[in-house]
Amino acid sequence: MSTSDTARADGVVRIALIGCGTVGSQVVRLLTEHGEDWAARSGAQLELVGIAVRDAAAERDPWVPRELLTEDVSGLIERTDVVVELIGGIEPARTLVLEALRGGRTVVTGNKALLAAHGPEVHAAVESGDADLYYEAAVAGAIPVVYGLRESLAGDNVVTVAGIVNGTTNYILDEMTMRGLSFDDALAQAQQLGYAEADPSSDIDGHDAAAKAAILASLAFHTRVGIDDVPVTGIRDVTVEDVTQARENGYVMKLLAVARRTPRRGRPAGIAVRVHPALVPETHPLAAVHGPFNAVVVEAESAGRLMFYGQGAGGVPTASAVLSDIVAAAGHAIRGGHAPRESTYAQLPLLGPEATPARTRVQISLADQPGTLAAVAGIYGEENVSIESVHQQRSDEGVARITITSHVATEAALERTVARLVAERSVEDVVSVSRVEGE
Amino acid sequence: MSTSDTARADGVVRIALIGCGTVGSQVVRLLTEHGEDWAARSGAQLELVGIAVRDAAAERDPWVPRELLTEDVSGLIERTDVVVELIGGIEPARTLVLEALRGGRTVVTGNKALLAAHGPEVHAAVESGDADLYYEAAVAGAIPVVYGLRESLAGDNVVTVAGIVNGTTNYILDEMTMRGLSFDDALAQAQQLGYAEADPSSDIDGHDAAAKAAILASLAFHTRVGIDDVPVTGIRDVTVEDVTQARENGYVMKLLAVARRTPRRGRPAGIAVRVHPALVPETHPLAAVHGPFNAVVVEAESAGRLMFYGQGAGGVPTASAVLSDIVAAAGHAIRGGHAPRESTYAQLPLLGPEATPARTRVQISLADQPGTLAAVAGIYGEENVSIESVHQQRSDEGVARITITSHVATEAALERTVARLVAERSVEDVVSVSRVEGE
Repeated sequence: MSTSDTARADGVVRIALIGCGTVGSQVVRLLTEHGEDWAARSGAQLELVGIAVRDAAAERDPWVPRELLTEDVSGLIERTDVVVELIGGIEPARTLVLEALRGGRTVVTGNKALLAAHGPEVHAAVESGDADLYYEAAVAGAIPVVYGLRESLAGDNVVTVAGIVNGTTNYILDEMTMRGLSFDDALAQAQQLGYAEADPSSDIDGHDAAAKAAILASLAFHTRVGIDDVPVTGIRDVTVEDVTQARENGYVMKLLAVARRTPRRGRPAGIAVRVHPALVPETHPLAAVHGPFNAVVVEAESAGRLMFYGQGAGGVPTASAVLSDIVAAAGHAIRGGHAPRESTYAQLPLLGPEATPARTRVQISLADQPGTLAAVAGIYGEENVSIESVHQQRSDEGVARITITSHVATEAALERTVARLVAERSVEDVVSVSRVEGE
Repeated sequence: MSTSDTARADGVVRIALIGCGTVGSQVVRLLTEHGEDWAARSGAQLELVGIAVRDAAAERDPWVPRELLTEDVSGLIERTDVVVELIGGIEPARTLVLEALRGGRTVVTGNKALLAAHGPEVHAAVESGDADLYYEAAVAGAIPVVYGLRESLAGDNVVTVAGIVNGTTNYILDEMTMRGLSFDDALAQAQQLGYAEADPSSDIDGHDAAAKAAILASLAFHTRVGIDDVPVTGIRDVTVEDVTQARENGYVMKLLAVARRTPRRGRPAGIAVRVHPALVPETHPLAAVHGPFNAVVVEAESAGRLMFYGQGAGGVPTASAVLSDIVAAAGHAIRGGHAPRESTYAQLPLLGPEATPARTRVQISLADQPGTLAAVAGIYGEENVSIESVHQQRSDEGVARITITSHVATEAALERTVARLVAERSVEDVVSVSRVEGE
């Protein structure tokens, strides 16, 4: 008898919660407080039959029923229809999720790291168990962007996904931009306020955003993308001068997760998925996303530009996404139907730097002498990078500060251009190189 | 044999298109151009078996296959699994949609007027035919806000929905605000550019927005709301002075569809659904929604503030929403599962003016004499409306121009306050009364 059969027989959907941290504890509260709503919407009684934790004796929020706590997670999974995994990280989450799925149980998870690193294995377990997998909470907290890409845009073809999907780095860049803090001071402040962890590397080095980028790209382009397919640059090297100077020129610096389909002669040639800081024009909707908020802009062939905006983290907003997945799962268990399966039919190739479009804004110090700007322009020309604009900020003691914004070229050509600028005798210093995104 | 049985037997989902105007023609194109994508995503071959039109001989876009055109719409419906209704308006759409649903066929529609005026009848036909109904295209074009409320937020409780859901009025108000055009000139320009119809009353009097407000409120609050439940004020009476003066004070004028749940002692007491022009603080996300773009802000108990943003009209963006519904319908036909049914379990009462919260910004001309401001403040106090701020703009020849912004009160108290201001001897004129929304 499959789990759906059991649930359908008595109208009760039995839920196991694995992990009872910030998000898990809120899931417990919401399941209890609003049980009548979930029942009316899903057609099922949602029964939380157990909460697996590492230490059943540890202190918990007052609403967590102590009698449901257990350290026997496998025993708990066996008694349930829906397994809600909220411990995060790879192990033991991976083993437990695979066990549940292979046993035909529905899994609801917020585990971006697991999906981005072991997606093929997890989706294979979905198939082998004829199970369902929901993961709205894995990307951008409460914002329904997984639903958006997996279901609402099933009748369109996505061209670009560009998102601010990490609140910690967005807060830090905001503080640098708005209040002129250095990166180190902004990070220290974020840590003090609880917006950044003691070891902040997953956020500030972009790995958290890269996991989300991989998930979004997989959904958007019906192609398998893992975290190792995503070249990442974090925000450690962003300086106050970069952000303030950018702002004076109408740009805002954001850490972006970008996934883009590149057309070639009208046919999709492949996709490029990247995480890096980028200058966004201040008129672009992403420029107005501040502090801990997240936003994902999707450009699709027919829909044009869409934006999904909301709180990207936090126990309560993330629990909203988990609850919606639970209600959907319960509805399917009772009324029939399934979560969409992994869709990888398009299998677009992942593009390297020679085929990935990019734009940069480069600042250099240049000897203020006849012919030096021509030499620089010559390097751009020889690398097939056309220049959108050149601005001279100032000239001190024979040294000019020049900002060169390119048109779209390839990443590789832009990298070669910078390497040649560094080697060029009349260039005293390449002060900064920033990506530019979003028109 | 039900339609799903037929479709499941041969893997073909037979589609009837009713109406081949701006949106319908794009649906035909997208069905044809990207058939492989839809098949891969839904597991079904989507076969367009006929296009019902009033005049099969009329000129069509070149990609519309003439051999599929028919004037026999009932005959066409009988041969299909999914009926896509894009003629709009009440009749004959109502009769055809009811016929299709009662026959157990899935209906995809963009017909907001039908759903807002005859929702109960349509949903009863869904039940009686055990059919499915999809209507993403009925509200805000390509923006997946129907999915958002009907599925993605099933695990949360919505508190407020506030949206810019009519591009015509948003364009007109933008032109008045940004370029100082009068209402009449902005409307004439919108008509010239094709953004407003020759008879613009459905847009500028707010009826189009009211239909969408009714649909959004029904979904958000699990309560039946029809267009007659929505008090409407359009934008005909908005003056350039209103919008420019508002702008100088940090507000932007928008036509909003607002649906709000009012709590009473922690329990939801009821909902109020309204369409009216309102001043929105320029820092609010809706203030940055320009021209033909639409946006819907949803505030939910757990998720907090979410925003869905995109193109609210136009043949191609709206066709994107229709196609996504078709792909979902085809997937369900082949793999099992259903669209969510109408959810009205909450049955919250609709609130009248005595129980509906509101804020206003009132401009009056006042005799600049001792005691007159006290008289005005006294009226507010007696009506239990507390004042947030009072500003005096100028004083000419003994007449002061005063702007009074209230805190939240009830609509009824605010109306009584204005009536008494009009009658008050020291008040020379009540220049304008504007709603204020969004903090």
